[in-house]
Amino acid sequence: MLSPLDRALLEMSRARAGLAIATDRETREAHAGDESGLPPVVPAAVIAARDADDVAAVLRSASDAGVTVTPRGGGSGKAGGAIPDDDGLALVLTGLDRELEIHAGDRIAVAGAGVVLARVREAARAERLFYGPDPSSLESATIGGNVATNASGPSSLRHGSTARWVRGLEVVTGAGTVLSMPSRVAKSTVGFDLPAIFTGSEGTLGVVTRVFLRLEPEPARLALATVSLSALEAIGPALVAIDRARLAPRAIELLDDEALTTLRAARTDHGLDPRAVAILFVELEGSEAGVDEDLSRLDEAVHALAVDVRLARNESEREALWKIRRDTSLALKRSAAHKLSEDVVVPRSRVGDLVASCRRLGAHHGVRMPSYGHAGDGNLHVNFLWDEPGQRGQVDRAMDALFREVLALGGTLSGEHGLGRAKAAYLPLAHEPARLEAERALKRLFDPAGILNRGKVLPDA
Amino acid sequence: MLSPLDRALLEMSRARAGLAIATDRETREAHAGDESGLPPVVPAAVIAARDADDVAAVLRSASDAGVTVTPRGGGSGKAGGAIPDDDGLALVLTGLDRELEIHAGDRIAVAGAGVVLARVREAARAERLFYGPDPSSLESATIGGNVATNASGPSSLRHGSTARWVRGLEVVTGAGTVLSMPSRVAKSTVGFDLPAIFTGSEGTLGVVTRVFLRLEPEPARLALATVSLSALEAIGPALVAIDRARLAPRAIELLDDEALTTLRAARTDHGLDPRAVAILFVELEGSEAGVDEDLSRLDEAVHALAVDVRLARNESEREALWKIRRDTSLALKRSAAHKLSEDVVVPRSRVGDLVASCRRLGAHHGVRMPSYGHAGDGNLHVNFLWDEPGQRGQVDRAMDALFREVLALGGTLSGEHGLGRAKAAYLPLAHEPARLEAERALKRLFDPAGILNRGKVLPDA
Repeated sequence: MLSPLDRALLEMSRARAGLAIATDRETREAHAGDESGLPPVVPAAVIAARDADDVAAVLRSASDAGVTVTPRGGGSGKAGGAIPDDDGLALVLTGLDRELEIHAGDRIAVAGAGVVLARVREAARAERLFYGPDPSSLESATIGGNVATNASGPSSLRHGSTARWVRGLEVVTGAGTVLSMPSRVAKSTVGFDLPAIFTGSEGTLGVVTRVFLRLEPEPARLALATVSLSALEAIGPALVAIDRARLAPRAIELLDDEALTTLRAARTDHGLDPRAVAILFVELEGSEAGVDEDLSRLDEAVHALAVDVRLARNESEREALWKIRRDTSLALKRSAAHKLSEDVVVPRSRVGDLVASCRRLGAHHGVRMPSYGHAGDGNLHVNFLWDEPGQRGQVDRAMDALFREVLALGGTLSGEHGLGRAKAAYLPLAHEPARLEAERALKRLFDPAGILNRGKVLPDA
Repeated sequence: MLSPLDRALLEMSRARAGLAIATDRETREAHAGDESGLPPVVPAAVIAARDADDVAAVLRSASDAGVTVTPRGGGSGKAGGAIPDDDGLALVLTGLDRELEIHAGDRIAVAGAGVVLARVREAARAERLFYGPDPSSLESATIGGNVATNASGPSSLRHGSTARWVRGLEVVTGAGTVLSMPSRVAKSTVGFDLPAIFTGSEGTLGVVTRVFLRLEPEPARLALATVSLSALEAIGPALVAIDRARLAPRAIELLDDEALTTLRAARTDHGLDPRAVAILFVELEGSEAGVDEDLSRLDEAVHALAVDVRLARNESEREALWKIRRDTSLALKRSAAHKLSEDVVVPRSRVGDLVASCRRLGAHHGVRMPSYGHAGDGNLHVNFLWDEPGQRGQVDRAMDALFREVLALGGTLSGEHGLGRAKAAYLPLAHEPARLEAERALKRLFDPAGILNRGKVLPDA
């Protein structure tokens, strides 16, 4: 008698001639982990899909046999969403990369799910158009993976997360039904917003195979300013002052006190104001004259709150300021043997409180917890740095305490990485029972056999 | 033995002391219609909800008894979404208007579903913040109704529809379950996007009782330009030229040839260029200097395509140009005994083709079909003007032909009004069978008794 796995593999290879199924150790090990720092899990087999019909055959066969399937794009996820089960399948979507069309007159891009994000952005730029989301993984992440995690980056402050850019999708549900939901229009209110349900569902309801994205005109100019603050308590007021000046920056990034301390220990040539306890990087976009005016207005708005403001009006000045941000990430990584990073969000007014909490929790648990990230959205990446492997228990306790603290501040568990495997267990703390039950009902509706990315997003019942 | 209606009314009044149930003819007739031009239907009773618990009791009792419920905000809908059944209930939400809080530091507004849109916008403005959606019904439409229809107006070109602004909702499902999904954060990727499913579902899946909205800094300045074109074929190229100039206008509105002809017949003092066959109104926003630069860039970008460009750099010039747009609506209304308006969307590059189709269909069916609206989004309001009551059959045939033409152009059935009762029958032309079945499954999930706004959005099976 065949095992459920063998039965599923046999059934899907009969349904789809030439389907690439690999069971060798090397291929399986190459599809076992992601960028979350969670332990990899080697799947039982790896399947490379060529199109939506392949995906449908795989999911139908797996549903029949009760074998779990974990969809996978570039493998750059930070929450363990692409880590498979050891008796399950890894379903690789990177082969769905042949289609990439820019319909410039309609401001619409159509792409296969496996197209790498940077290619989408470049193809749009060639038409002087702009696709907003800019996660740091843009050279390796696929657009399908971006949709699955509702990815974003610094510019989400002005341009929103991936969900804001999705106009239509082709999705294969867990039951193996292909849902074709194309769009060539800029707006619509027709039926229910099914594409929105799948966006950010981290491959637990369906597998994205094709995307229809909104594009915008590319901004004419970018500029950057750094605002040095002498106290964490000034972060909230600085954000409000920028709003009150009627500025709508593309991004407002933060380096906190612990991050700056690490940078200063690593390098001395940045010329940072010695009084700076936190730095905001404010990126502006618009027309030539508009950006000049905005820079001056920004300077005026934050003047009383800041100990130092630097304005980069041209590209080389801008590059020099961003270098401080990049060097800090590097300095953090080099300053400890082990590093994990968590993605959390608080209400904008509580960013200073979140940083203060990190300091308190870090001291209590004996872990360094510098944070940086998208302060304008209240979305920080809190790092955990430690040197001895035996400290991992402390790190886990600090992380648990952080999630609870974030929720107590009125925030939530993830701004852009998703819950994946890492935080699924915390969802019941964030969503009340009736909401959680409605989410479980959606899961049953689209994935009745419960085979799709099991254990991600929703905790096991 | 009690009728199902009496049983439902008795049950809900037992569950909720003091629930306002009206069965007098006058109240029922006052809640029979909307702004769609469709025939009103007098409900069997009208219930005024005070809070989510009232709504839950009403929907539970109605589900038990199998009595239909049609939720209702300001009654300004244009698609018949608020027209009840003659043996059903009208559920009025305007009483949920006591809560309206602006959390300026968090850029979040929290409001009861019954708060009128203009109040939300004004409360935000008092904090120098901005809530984007600007349907023309903003003085009467409720924010809950806006969420239900995913409403928008001219500024959706830059600022999107209501869905882009919804951060969280409180919703009562058809089964009477209160789903509390609050948010005080700017972004999140936590669980499934349930609020998105209810947004735009026109009260067929649940009743919105409370909204959590994102706010943005208010733009510092607005300005307007009109671009007169001598041919419909120039509309698409003009939109592309504006994109290529890296301009991101707040709105691009169109008056087509038939609309201009009507305006010219009504008034002669507008000084319109006699060669103008279509006019684009381009509204810009940004900083003082930025808008000046953008106006000049716009002038340059469309120069070769336009027969006349007028720039309004100050408020009184801006007002004078917008007056042309408003006077045209008025002139259209006065030029015929009967008028209906339909909301359709095509890909941006097909706006000129849509106007040409209107001309052809109008001639064929003997109905005048001027159009105007949100050309930048490809979202036009096509009017049907006729004088003799006997022509109504021609109008219906012209309307049917228009919907099919729009779909053939790659467009869709509604940009901002929704399908309501008016276009539910056309949904199967827009959505393929598997998608439609998924929509029906969502309906069964959240409204198992099928009592909520029956016959709207989804056609009867």
